Amino acid sequence: MYRDEILELLRGVKEGTVTPEEALHDLKREPFDDLGYAKVDVHRELRQGVPEVIFGAGKTTKQIRGIVGSMKARGREDILITRLSKEAAAELVDLDLEYHELARIGIVSHNTSKELTGSIVIACGGTSDIPVCEEAAITAELFGNKVTRLYDVGVAGIHRLLSNMDPLMDARVVIAVAGMEGALASVVGGLVDCPVIAVPTSVGYGSNFHGLSALLSMLNSCASGVSVVNIDNGFGAGYLASMINKMESAKD
Amino acid sequence: MYRDEILELLRGVKEGTVTPEEALHDLKREPFDDLGYAKVDVHRELRQGVPEVIFGAGKTTKQIRGIVGSMKARGREDILITRLSKEAAAELVDLDLEYHELARIGIVSHNTSKELTGSIVIACGGTSDIPVCEEAAITAELFGNKVTRLYDVGVAGIHRLLSNMDPLMDARVVIAVAGMEGALASVVGGLVDCPVIAVPTSVGYGSNFHGLSALLSMLNSCASGVSVVNIDNGFGAGYLASMINKMESAKD
Amino acid sequence: MYRDEILELLRGVKEGTVTPEEALHDLKREPFDDLGYAKVDVHRELRQGVPEVIFGAGKTTKQIRGIVGSMKARGREDILITRLSKEAAAELVDLDLEYHELARIGIVSHNTSKELTGSIVIACGGTSDIPVCEEAAITAELFGNKVTRLYDVGVAGIHRLLSNMDPLMDARVVIAVAGMEGALASVVGGLVDCPVIAVPTSVGYGSNFHGLSALLSMLNSCASGVSVVNIDNGFGAGYLASMINKMESAKD
Amino acid sequence: MYRDEILELLRGVKEGTVTPEEALHDLKREPFDDLGYAKVDVHRELRQGVPEVIFGAGKTTKQIRGIVGSMKARGREDILITRLSKEAAAELVDLDLEYHELARIGIVSHNTSKELTGSIVIACGGTSDIPVCEEAAITAELFGNKVTRLYDVGVAGIHRLLSNMDPLMDARVVIAVAGMEGALASVVGGLVDCPVIAVPTSVGYGSNFHGLSALLSMLNSCASGVSVVNIDNGFGAGYLASMINKMESAKD
Amino acid sequence: MYRDEILELLRGVKEGTVTPEEALHDLKREPFDDLGYAKVDVHRELRQGVPEVIFGAGKTTKQIRGIVGSMKARGREDILITRLSKEAAAELVDLDLEYHELARIGIVSHNTSKELTGSIVIACGGTSDIPVCEEAAITAELFGNKVTRLYDVGVAGIHRLLSNMDPLMDARVVIAVAGMEGALASVVGGLVDCPVIAVPTSVGYGSNFHGLSALLSMLNSCASGVSVVNIDNGFGAGYLASMINKMESAKD
Amino acid sequence: MYRDEILELLRGVKEGTVTPEEALHDLKREPFDDLGYAKVDVHRELRQGVPEVIFGAGKTTKQIRGIVGSMKARGREDILITRLSKEAAAELVDLDLEYHELARIGIVSHNTSKELTGSIVIACGGTSDIPVCEEAAITAELFGNKVTRLYDVGVAGIHRLLSNMDPLMDARVVIAVAGMEGALASVVGGLVDCPVIAVPTSVGYGSNFHGLSALLSMLNSCASGVSVVNIDNGFGAGYLASMINKMESAKD
Amino acid sequence: MYRDEILELLRGVKEGTVTPEEALHDLKREPFDDLGYAKVDVHRELRQGVPEVIFGAGKTTKQIRGIVGSMKARGREDILITRLSKEAAAELVDLDLEYHELARIGIVSHNTSKELTGSIVIACGGTSDIPVCEEAAITAELFGNKVTRLYDVGVAGIHRLLSNMDPLMDARVVIAVAGMEGALASVVGGLVDCPVIAVPTSVGYGSNFHGLSALLSMLNSCASGVSVVNIDNGFGAGYLASMINKMESAKD
Amino acid sequence: MYRDEILELLRGVKEGTVTPEEALHDLKREPFDDLGYAKVDVHRELRQGVPEVIFGAGKTTKQIRGIVGSMKARGREDILITRLSKEAAAELVDLDLEYHELARIGIVSHNTSKELTGSIVIACGGTSDIPVCEEAAITAELFGNKVTRLYDVGVAGIHRLLSNMDPLMDARVVIAVAGMEGALASVVGGLVDCPVIAVPTSVGYGSNFHGLSALLSMLNSCASGVSVVNIDNGFGAGYLASMINKMESAKD
Repeated sequence: MYRDEILELLRGVKEGTVTPEEALHDLKREPFDDLGYAKVDVHRELRQGVPEVIFGAGKTTKQIRGIVGSMKARGREDILITRLSKEAAAELVDLDLEYHELARIGIVSHNTSKELTGSIVIACGGTSDIPVCEEAAITAELFGNKVTRLYDVGVAGIHRLLSNMDPLMDARVVIAVAGMEGALASVVGGLVDCPVIAVPTSVGYGSNFHGLSALLSMLNSCASGVSVVNIDNGFGAGYLASMINKMESAKD
Repeated sequence: MYRDEILELLRGVKEGTVTPEEALHDLKREPFDDLGYAKVDVHRELRQGVPEVIFGAGKTTKQIRGIVGSMKARGREDILITRLSKEAAAELVDLDLEYHELARIGIVSHNTSKELTGSIVIACGGTSDIPVCEEAAITAELFGNKVTRLYDVGVAGIHRLLSNMDPLMDARVVIAVAGMEGALASVVGGLVDCPVIAVPTSVGYGSNFHGLSALLSMLNSCASGVSVVNIDNGFGAGYLASMINKMESAKD
Repeated sequence: MYRDEILELLRGVKEGTVTPEEALHDLKREPFDDLGYAKVDVHRELRQGVPEVIFGAGKTTKQIRGIVGSMKARGREDILITRLSKEAAAELVDLDLEYHELARIGIVSHNTSKELTGSIVIACGGTSDIPVCEEAAITAELFGNKVTRLYDVGVAGIHRLLSNMDPLMDARVVIAVAGMEGALASVVGGLVDCPVIAVPTSVGYGSNFHGLSALLSMLNSCASGVSVVNIDNGFGAGYLASMINKMESAKD
Repeated sequence: MYRDEILELLRGVKEGTVTPEEALHDLKREPFDDLGYAKVDVHRELRQGVPEVIFGAGKTTKQIRGIVGSMKARGREDILITRLSKEAAAELVDLDLEYHELARIGIVSHNTSKELTGSIVIACGGTSDIPVCEEAAITAELFGNKVTRLYDVGVAGIHRLLSNMDPLMDARVVIAVAGMEGALASVVGGLVDCPVIAVPTSVGYGSNFHGLSALLSMLNSCASGVSVVNIDNGFGAGYLASMINKMESAKD
Repeated sequence: MYRDEILELLRGVKEGTVTPEEALHDLKREPFDDLGYAKVDVHRELRQGVPEVIFGAGKTTKQIRGIVGSMKARGREDILITRLSKEAAAELVDLDLEYHELARIGIVSHNTSKELTGSIVIACGGTSDIPVCEEAAITAELFGNKVTRLYDVGVAGIHRLLSNMDPLMDARVVIAVAGMEGALASVVGGLVDCPVIAVPTSVGYGSNFHGLSALLSMLNSCASGVSVVNIDNGFGAGYLASMINKMESAKD
Repeated sequence: MYRDEILELLRGVKEGTVTPEEALHDLKREPFDDLGYAKVDVHRELRQGVPEVIFGAGKTTKQIRGIVGSMKARGREDILITRLSKEAAAELVDLDLEYHELARIGIVSHNTSKELTGSIVIACGGTSDIPVCEEAAITAELFGNKVTRLYDVGVAGIHRLLSNMDPLMDARVVIAVAGMEGALASVVGGLVDCPVIAVPTSVGYGSNFHGLSALLSMLNSCASGVSVVNIDNGFGAGYLASMINKMESAKD
Repeated sequence: MYRDEILELLRGVKEGTVTPEEALHDLKREPFDDLGYAKVDVHRELRQGVPEVIFGAGKTTKQIRGIVGSMKARGREDILITRLSKEAAAELVDLDLEYHELARIGIVSHNTSKELTGSIVIACGGTSDIPVCEEAAITAELFGNKVTRLYDVGVAGIHRLLSNMDPLMDARVVIAVAGMEGALASVVGGLVDCPVIAVPTSVGYGSNFHGLSALLSMLNSCASGVSVVNIDNGFGAGYLASMINKMESAKD
Repeated sequence: MYRDEILELLRGVKEGTVTPEEALHDLKREPFDDLGYAKVDVHRELRQGVPEVIFGAGKTTKQIRGIVGSMKARGREDILITRLSKEAAAELVDLDLEYHELARIGIVSHNTSKELTGSIVIACGGTSDIPVCEEAAITAELFGNKVTRLYDVGVAGIHRLLSNMDPLMDARVVIAVAGMEGALASVVGGLVDCPVIAVPTSVGYGSNFHGLSALLSMLNSCASGVSVVNIDNGFGAGYLASMINKMESAKD
């Protein structure tokens, strides 16, 4: 595609409809809105239905408002704002923000008519991991994926996990979320045949060291097919799970 | 499937062809060969064409020989032995071992007639990362995947990467292998639309701390769609890439 | 026992009182109440007198209330809620909660008629370690163990410890709780003949690194018979001490 | 006992059979042989049947020989030398050393007539963990315990563990040995009702960081009844397991 | 220079205009104002135009006021106070403090007539890195340097960086500010021919570990010409960039 | 001394003025007041003039009040309470507490008539290190030592340190307090001939990691005669400096 | 320049001397020799006099030979191979390799006629740091810089450094190389007015942790104008120092 | 003293016996022999009896020979070479080197006629710590101190330590050497009234992390009067102990 654009441009130069100087200018034109404090991508303008994502942490509500404004001006839907505090959400209420407090996610211009497809299972070890799970779940749903939630199925009571083999067996991707010792990823990875995305959480105390124990545990998983994202990174897991869940068969 | 087996067994009990005691025995029967020092999985007996994997590190050649023997006795093909030192490979030469020194991989009963499908790109930052790449590449090929190698395309000379956009754009999965600062994963993750599996390597020195710098860098990637496996874990990346590459379209 | 249940079920199938489908259903039935955010174990329903445990940290009071409700509905006693903040305890006051502020423990439906048996000694290095000690002590007492408290007997004044040799010599298990350099575990371990459970605490400052110094110190204890639980994990120590204290003699 | 000795001594002083000076001397007499480089404990002289332990690492064979000599001179049996390299063992062959190469353990004056009692199960995740298991197993056996070995039952193939529930259910203590992500301890801890001693091993690579991942994982186990000893510390686990296995019922 | 002063002093001694005792006294005289809690440098008294710097963190407003007073008394201009909280700034408002909230910088006696020279580019990965950038930018401008800001050009959208090649190519020094994986420094370092000062920021979460990931990443940069300052140290980067930007050609 | 007490006791037994049972009791009597939460040392009862020390952090004001009460009841003077917050000090005002806010030290029953002897120099790198210095200084003064304060003499302006060589040269002990890179200890250690006690402080930011950088720097000092105490441990440094400063000449 | 090439290409398209397809091809042509295992940069072909650099570690001698061959074929001079072991150098002797054993540097086709300009001072703390210094020194000299070596001037004997103020004062850049506590960088940074590049070395033992102490110390330097490269990275320091030393005055 | 030299020089200038230029030259003359790779201190020329120290690690035997030569040329005695490997010692045998293999110390021109004074006790936890102890002991003896060795008195058998109270009580300084959990320092610190220098050793395994556990333990010692030197730094401990042991009474 990008290659086609260059070729088209060069043909324009050859045909004289574009001067070399204009072509150079175009080759260098910025495919984003420059707000000074942020450069909003406008590359995906025509790809309707793909959500826009704003990482909310570390941005002022004024900056978020500016970025959302730039997106809405181009007719975007499904604008996802992650790591959005309750206080910030309250300040942005006039944007018609749909706010998920547990997941700390805000959605603007939510297109709720999407059909959800495929099968992503999100399992977690304990009740305290649910916020990270929900960040992953809402992200995946916004991207159009069918999500099954299996919460509080930690390995210390392995029968709770084994009692839920059916959805696990049917999954195209599993997101395994766990704090403390993070063993869920390995156990799930040994039970299923599909990719497992492990999300360590900072749930725990003491030698958990803010998620380090679960992170190391998951990176060292002896089960094949397991990969890891950052501690508490529910969004990243949901995004990647969507990518995998939506894959088409390879062409011959 | 496993569910079906149980159901069938219970029907046998009902019909009297199986006693309750036999059923209990069967429910508990070990789906593996117990060699004492290892329990060789026999679950996948009928799934021809899926390679068997032996993690060679920490096993004596006698143990490896025993496990390979157990597998061959059941007619397995494509037995993959990872982390196999040159010395161990020499001792196992009578097994008709195909040995890849760079990747430290041995293959027994290699079925070379498999058709390779899909598209996995393996990119690395520097020449020193090649052994990890090759571990991933040979694993993926043994599992039946088409692999493209893009070596020495580190971000310090970004034009080397940008000159190879075509295979990257065509990839179904990319494996990004890098030591030192591990920036390759983020840059590749920002360029492609498919899942990126990041493999930190222990290549580097000083504050690299045996791969820690690349590992942390990749876990903190600001690009979406990136997940990480253990330092130097070429096999894990190749295995997961195969899983993703071979996905079928989701059924409606 | 679990094995007996399966056998009984299969006999039922054989005798026709249970259909294979029912048996499969039973084999897969969930031995817990599924509250969505938590799966409450109902396995131990008949084992009266064994406390139920809820890890309070990271749970909302609404969730705790739900779990307690599910337990009480089944007639449980001695429901232990650990890591319960003073604020959360105040919100749950209507549950007839017995709250131990120092230990941050709540107890619902406390059966105070239990006889306390055996002998567990809980020793700590300094006054600041007492909250962790009390978490262990109250847990152990709730499980029916006799507990002796030896507080502020740190190794910097070894005579304070040596003056208390009698209870130490009579203990069946010792819990050694210490922050800072954690040396208490080694010294106690060298004085007694029974198992010593070491609990590092996060008490200290500077290069204590939130309990790391005591943790490493205890793991490296040169005294035999010492094992370690997580930093500040008074509950875990109390639970394990109870297990050991209550052991019966091995049968011949 | 020690208390009785003091009392007896004081009575001797009172009765004039012991002078105060002699009593002071006795109170301060060294309950060990002082070899200069080592102080060999002679306290346990009469407690026949309890093995003596020498930590072999960091000692020259000359020092080990001296310590063994001091012990044998007092008629000790079952002298256990841990962390003894193959080379050192060869140099000590004239001591009638029984050497276990895998476990790196030497035994002098092995009393093989002991009856083994109780039930300790030693389970490990993979073949590479076996040396640590054997250090624990041989230690426990030398102390008179019955040991069951369950090797290569890692959580990535959970059916291998579930197929071995019977010995686990019958155990009085379980030693769970695992490297990599160390999840075995949590899973076992959730399945059994007895104390679980977790031993992290340095088996693995990359972000395993020489056993750190398994260590943190085990310390953060969400299963109750689990405690941890140092990385690769098979001896410590075997010793502690023996203490617990041999416990008598508490007196009323 | 300093050498000349000594020589002059000694000549004075020789000529008898200075006694040896006076000379010794002068050789030892303190080139700073001693306020007790601080020793204010008076060495640079005559070097007009070079800003004075006060590290504000950890100082009380009373101490800051004292130091500023000592400087103003000597006629200094461009007194820069870094790490100055909004609250402290409010307390110091009577000093005619120019306060930059985002950069947490205060300036007293700002000489705004300086001509800005040379070319420093400050680039950052994301909007959240802007405070560190501004600390660097305002510092550099106060020291008389021309600064170009390129914000939100992180490597996950490499086209945003490539679209801004012109200012980068014209820079004499680049300051690359980035949190998360810190890859910006390597990519910029590979694109430009001038020194790159990398500033890791603590922006991020989880395994970012308060800036450690970006720090290690930048230290391990495979691009040549990159060096690193402390996490979030915008001031240090701005100061060093000024030093380099203002270099004269080497004399033959 | 302790030896003499035992001997005297035994002589009493011999002479019949003490029964063996009484002697045993005395040998075991507790040389401290047991307050339950604390065991207050009464060993030093007669050693008038030596301050008593209470580590205030982690103790409630009620506990501190109890310990102070126990001490005052025995006529102690110079009771030092370290790490005492301003709030706690306010609650204890009725104890006639002399409170040093900067040093977070409280003193009860201060005997101000002591003569201060010897010479301890306390030097620090920057203004922000002063609280730790003052903790050391007030401790040392309370123990009867003459203290010279050299504040803000960090190595980045080495002339500030070199201008203060006289007190350094006259010191019997130097306490070098520094955060950030902690280089002060090495530089001072290279200039003086007396013991240097290095105190790393948590002053700094970023890769300072709460004092780790200064701690490691000081431990690795290439200057001889330098030893290190815990991060921010002003009290420990002051106490040790007093011990060294007050040493008498060795007897022949 | 790169911009000019594009413009020229586009003019060619316009004038019909270049087809759009050719232009696209050229825009994408690889500015490097692709050897498979390495992509050798040919971008700098005409910039005679600038050395080529090969990072030797992790490359086989066959690979190094291939890369050198590709460079020589284009007439390059001053090919620098860093981290080249003595053994590898011996295997490459036929390349007319000039080998510096201490610095582990090899040079092929050394153009020794360059004039050395400017002034770089390389100072180190101790004799053991010399190999890292030499790596920096030889690199800088190969790039055409005048280098002054000040070895063994560590801060524990500050007079050694102060006796060498003249070359320091005349330097345009200083490279401060130190292991252990790394204080040299701060002290030098406080004495000079030019940029200081700090190189931590892995020299030391114990809590030096392979250079970590010096690294953290240097990153936390309280002296302005100091930046840091990776542990033992003499090459990086030499390269950056050359960049700075060779700067021209900024144009008005 | 140094001050006196300057004054004398200035008086010479005044009296005309020294020209200003000569004075400047003298003020700047190097108080060391510059061997290029090392600057040998000649400051202490007249202080007969104080040993010279060469840190042997990282120096070639050629460099050591050069430094020893420079010292001997000035008539020095008691030249101490630390961290000298057995191999290096063999190469230097012609220097009449007295070599202590266990301590890895070489001594040249040993003046054995010194009288040893005072009282330093060196205690260690286990046999494996003896090499570090001996490094301290031989250093202290060479500096003229009387040393008592208490080896293998670790806290796991506290009676071994308590049986050696007499030498401890008589010590002017104690050096406590321990690996593993390093608890010896705290226990000794609580028993004695003199300064305790703690030396962590790298003895141990697993979570000992090469001495980190003992180091942190010792830094966090709750006993007063304890300070710490680097891991395995026997020399540093011996040197500092000598400084303290040799202190004279403070003058009034």
